[in-house]
Amino acid sequence: MKEIKSHRTFSGKTSFWSHLSSETKTEMKFSTYIPAGVPKGCIIWLSGLTCTEENFISKAGAQKYLDEAGLMVIAPDTSPRGLNLPGEHDAYDFGSGAGFYLDATVNGYKDHYRMYSYITHELYQIIQNQFQMKNISIMGHSMGGHGALVIGLRNPDKFKAISAFAPIVNPTGCSWGQKAFTGYLGENQDFWKEYDTCELLESGRKHPSQILIHQGDKDEFFKTQLLTEKFVEASRASGQAHEVKYCEGFDHSYYFIATFMEEHILHHRKSME
Amino acid sequence: MKEIKSHRTFSGKTSFWSHLSSETKTEMKFSTYIPAGVPKGCIIWLSGLTCTEENFISKAGAQKYLDEAGLMVIAPDTSPRGLNLPGEHDAYDFGSGAGFYLDATVNGYKDHYRMYSYITHELYQIIQNQFQMKNISIMGHSMGGHGALVIGLRNPDKFKAISAFAPIVNPTGCSWGQKAFTGYLGENQDFWKEYDTCELLESGRKHPSQILIHQGDKDEFFKTQLLTEKFVEASRASGQAHEVKYCEGFDHSYYFIATFMEEHILHHRKSME
Repeated sequence: MKEIKSHRTFSGKTSFWSHLSSETKTEMKFSTYIPAGVPKGCIIWLSGLTCTEENFISKAGAQKYLDEAGLMVIAPDTSPRGLNLPGEHDAYDFGSGAGFYLDATVNGYKDHYRMYSYITHELYQIIQNQFQMKNISIMGHSMGGHGALVIGLRNPDKFKAISAFAPIVNPTGCSWGQKAFTGYLGENQDFWKEYDTCELLESGRKHPSQILIHQGDKDEFFKTQLLTEKFVEASRASGQAHEVKYCEGFDHSYYFIATFMEEHILHHRKSME
Repeated sequence: MKEIKSHRTFSGKTSFWSHLSSETKTEMKFSTYIPAGVPKGCIIWLSGLTCTEENFISKAGAQKYLDEAGLMVIAPDTSPRGLNLPGEHDAYDFGSGAGFYLDATVNGYKDHYRMYSYITHELYQIIQNQFQMKNISIMGHSMGGHGALVIGLRNPDKFKAISAFAPIVNPTGCSWGQKAFTGYLGENQDFWKEYDTCELLESGRKHPSQILIHQGDKDEFFKTQLLTEKFVEASRASGQAHEVKYCEGFDHSYYFIATFMEEHILHHRKSME
């Protein structure tokens, strides 16, 4: 694991790292913010389509709140890089920058696009072993909100809390998800369900803590791709504790995320007390 | 003046604008953050080399503090765009992205590179007339810190306060400034002095308010290009009120700026009471 660069920020350090991943068999990058002292825990941040390890750490304004809360954050890249698989670089919503936090089963992709296992096992172990954090939780935005919900619901013992900004909650029911799942998992939709938050809730998966979601009502993807209301329905039906806040006038951007970042960090902080 | 896009942020709106500039004779862009209610005033933010109207507004985390202080900010692009003057796009420190907040006198550049007048007159009037702000102040980073200091010192009646992060305080004494001033103003160094903060202070220019500067001690340009200590010497000699804070471990990045942004916004807010 190599620290590429670091910048003092508030009491701590914003850093960029690279390492050779055993899951993706590529070099993977991630960013961290580590406040001074001994952090009380670490939040994994999963970014959305087209993002790298840099978007969140440079745009979300999270460091101030992480500093105050005494929490670390780790933000990985959104897919393997440096490959040249068929169709990998043709669209913003599939392949590079669009790993969808699943383990691909389709030939070619299955050897590298293993973002579910990368986050759940490999990055998780890096947080435990290299950064020596015990309390770990997960949040994300859009495709990364989908990742946080799926990974958190499937591994309730590993993650203290889950939250999301404008997540894709029902990828099997929207064109982003259908395109990605077909490309990574093939046509058989039975294999898609393990990566769909609403399907997971319906099948009985549950997280012991309340899930926090913010959703802008002027988000251009709200009604077509994110389908946030379906999460509310599925949570109600299954008894999953949740708080979904619709935010008047807000869109899908990092300006929206920055506005509600403090609330999310306090949500995660509370789960680590 | 056209609003290209806007994003709700905290109580207010982050917006991007374009207009045809009479000074640069090009389309110029700027960003704004306007909190809810009637702002008490407007801070002009001037960015550094290679930046556009987007860097500050997306990375500095200023909106939260502007919201709390009830202040507007306006952040213009750093040079004219869309031209093809000789050598304009060859280097990061001259031409596009590097206007240095001066009025060029060299043929070719003199018709468009008029960033001093663009900020001091045209943008100033836009703030007064389009945004109806009376209290106006100025701050910036690096090349933009140079711009804020020069424009503020030469127009003490127009700007309530001046502050800067890691400014180029003595451009006639560093290679960035010497290259830019030669290219924009020609070889005669007598014409350079009106754009050099230390020279302005030595010639008796003064601002009635205390000038606030933060400078990271791990800034890679501190000793070679910024020469912050020369500002302290010149201010002491001339009686300019100033507070220069050296910040241990901080570099030249927006992570440094974000850390001390609240202090700068409160400095400007105080001048508008």
